[in-house]
Amino acid sequence: MKIPRSHPRYESLIRRERLVRAWKAGIVVPEGLIAHGRGEAWDYLFGEGTSAPALVAEKAAAAHLVRAKRPVISVNGNVAALAPKEIVRLAKAIPARIEVNLFHRTEARVRRIVRTLTRHGGTGVLGTGGDARIPHLDSRRALTHRAGIYGADVVVVPLEDGDRTEALVRMGKTVIAIDLNPLSRTSQMASIPVVDELTRAVLNIDEFVRELRRDPEEAARIVKSYKKADNLRAMYSFLGWRLRSLLRGRPARRKTRD
Amino acid sequence: MKIPRSHPRYESLIRRERLVRAWKAGIVVPEGLIAHGRGEAWDYLFGEGTSAPALVAEKAAAAHLVRAKRPVISVNGNVAALAPKEIVRLAKAIPARIEVNLFHRTEARVRRIVRTLTRHGGTGVLGTGGDARIPHLDSRRALTHRAGIYGADVVVVPLEDGDRTEALVRMGKTVIAIDLNPLSRTSQMASIPVVDELTRAVLNIDEFVRELRRDPEEAARIVKSYKKADNLRAMYSFLGWRLRSLLRGRPARRKTRD
Repeated sequence: MKIPRSHPRYESLIRRERLVRAWKAGIVVPEGLIAHGRGEAWDYLFGEGTSAPALVAEKAAAAHLVRAKRPVISVNGNVAALAPKEIVRLAKAIPARIEVNLFHRTEARVRRIVRTLTRHGGTGVLGTGGDARIPHLDSRRALTHRAGIYGADVVVVPLEDGDRTEALVRMGKTVIAIDLNPLSRTSQMASIPVVDELTRAVLNIDEFVRELRRDPEEAARIVKSYKKADNLRAMYSFLGWRLRSLLRGRPARRKTRD
Repeated sequence: MKIPRSHPRYESLIRRERLVRAWKAGIVVPEGLIAHGRGEAWDYLFGEGTSAPALVAEKAAAAHLVRAKRPVISVNGNVAALAPKEIVRLAKAIPARIEVNLFHRTEARVRRIVRTLTRHGGTGVLGTGGDARIPHLDSRRALTHRAGIYGADVVVVPLEDGDRTEALVRMGKTVIAIDLNPLSRTSQMASIPVVDELTRAVLNIDEFVRELRRDPEEAARIVKSYKKADNLRAMYSFLGWRLRSLLRGRPARRKTRD
């Protein structure tokens, strides 16, 4: 199906199509499709754009990443389906290691995702095997790499589950989550919860990384001034405002998500 | 995977498992999994329970159904996966005809869904073939039965898309939608939008049908007194209140949906 660029829901439909294609290629699991739907509903509530508080979190994320000693980006099936190019580009800009880490793990799926990222220019992508375990997680979900997430000081976990986010925080890492649900345990647990759609978030962080790499003082200032609780509070205010305007604005015949 | 009944998210996890199983059986399509995720996010916002305004709409739906001359329940893949037994039971209580009607239609999938409903006790389930077309819909999505949706005066469309809901309303039918998004075009277009989770909605409507069948005067009174705009307004107030309490209540470490 060809979706015209002029379609009001173009971006959202393209994302959906990418996921279904990746599911057919054995990269995305059915649970990932359901999770994507949850994200779609939240993104609709947020107006399908980056909010001001999300932009603040994205800049803080970038500041932590440029100052990190061993930054790592964690990639799962949905992330590889939706933004492989953008993830690889961000990894090179930082520069950071990429590790494929799956909730519904099979080695075959890990290999397919590593291949996808490599095809998009990723180098040294970690994933298969694993030589370390994250404490407090059941065995299959704990598997990771010393050269990757296990040894990282700053980890980006886009579309991650709450347990793993919590386990990584407990290990003392700075955990940057990307999750559209501001009330999820992932968003509550992360050191820097970025409440934004994946591709938008990665592109914004990428831009801030390129800016802050040239300005270490500004990066240091941002790391110091970012306050998670304040940022989440601003996010909740924004969400409340959005919902009020959605409910007020709802004309009986306007096109909205079905 | 065995999910213990004591799990705080038991119902939601069972539903997810049912959908994934039905997807493996060729009953649910990937787009249906994504749509289910959107519903999950809304249901989470609603507190995963039937709201007072939803209950009012469910009673109005039951009143219309017991007074209908040719009531029909439309069933798609997600509906067959999530509540086949409940749908058949409701159809018998009214009594109403069931017609399988798919957005992503293939005759093979229609047949599989007819078989599922028949296995759960459904009789005379319509679906394959079709001998009429709903005006204003593209050809494949328009196909329907004279003895079913085409000839119905009251139609229940659970988890339906906006275009078809609108087309049925334009045909002069009383359209009862079941959709968790109160802002969707389906909810805006339907004669009676029921904003509730599918299984809960069907069980509640079933109970009201059994009650109102014995009380035609009360059914007539309810049909007269139900006002869609008032009901939706009450739904929006409820949603605003829920969101406010979610945002207020969010302790940093509480378990919420990931």
